Amino acid sequence: MKGLIQVYTGDGKGKTTAAVGLAIRARAHNLRVGYIYFHKEPEKRGDSEHRVLTGLGVDTFGFAKKHPHFFKGVTADEIRKECLEGLRFIKRVYQEDRYDLLILDEINISMRDGFLKEEEVLEILKAKPEGLELVLTGRGAPQGIIDCADLVSEIKAIKHPYDMGIQHRKGIEY
Amino acid sequence: MKGLIQVYTGDGKGKTTAAVGLAIRARAHNLRVGYIYFHKEPEKRGDSEHRVLTGLGVDTFGFAKKHPHFFKGVTADEIRKECLEGLRFIKRVYQEDRYDLLILDEINISMRDGFLKEEEVLEILKAKPEGLELVLTGRGAPQGIIDCADLVSEIKAIKHPYDMGIQHRKGIEY
Repeated sequence: MKGLIQVYTGDGKGKTTAAVGLAIRARAHNLRVGYIYFHKEPEKRGDSEHRVLTGLGVDTFGFAKKHPHFFKGVTADEIRKECLEGLRFIKRVYQEDRYDLLILDEINISMRDGFLKEEEVLEILKAKPEGLELVLTGRGAPQGIIDCADLVSEIKAIKHPYDMGIQHRKGIEY
Repeated sequence: MKGLIQVYTGDGKGKTTAAVGLAIRARAHNLRVGYIYFHKEPEKRGDSEHRVLTGLGVDTFGFAKKHPHFFKGVTADEIRKECLEGLRFIKRVYQEDRYDLLILDEINISMRDGFLKEEEVLEILKAKPEGLELVLTGRGAPQGIIDCADLVSEIKAIKHPYDMGIQHRKGIEY
């Protein structure tokens, strides 16, 4: 069956959660799932969803785990190199036909913040093996990516509790 | 910790998937999770996510499983009765303090299609125990519900592959 390119973007809550839900649903059907994090260290933060994903047999990988916005001494140039390494990894995964579903979590951020060029990610989308379902998440998906995707959901924050000063809550937010 | 009221609405893909992701994340933290389906029979359809949820210790319940739009001989009056039974069930769950997270999947549809009145669901929101996180999903959340919620994400379909005649795919769509 032809795999699609899905994009979850927008400033609302639910992008990564939707991707995690997709991964879990696919694993329940015994599909092979790869989950690549950009600009996150879920295994360090002790994210429960990371534990659930690995427990259900999802392969997880991380590239460009730090972000200069949050870590001093990390340069944009370093992050770009790590992002490019991520893209090379994706191409290898393609060649080896390792997965039925591959999630590129927060890769839109890599483009938004200038670590990856839109063309570089477009090249990845266009090289996708036909049977692979590819999912991109993160705010600020560029128009070229949206044009290339088959399914795009924009998650808009109509109301967001952080406006009200509510902190991240364990088990709910992460 | 104060529990919030979250709403996932809009015509895009990812509302239920986000709710399932929230449920799984909460279970990974050993929170107590109840998942109430409206207008769905996931256990009959063999939905994989239903199996995953129950496997992870989420309690699932269904009310008004059929919808007159899909089933002949089902009357709106019957469905309304079953929806009201669902609301009574929620109140009992409140009293018994059974859950930390309670998901009311597709309850927005119950209002949109006239089986429940907005005031009836608002009463449920207002009676929520303080510590309980309550999640409502489904298209067409009425303004009164949005006003009462703490966090609202509207998922907009920017592009939807069904427009292109692509069918539901096992392991990806359900």
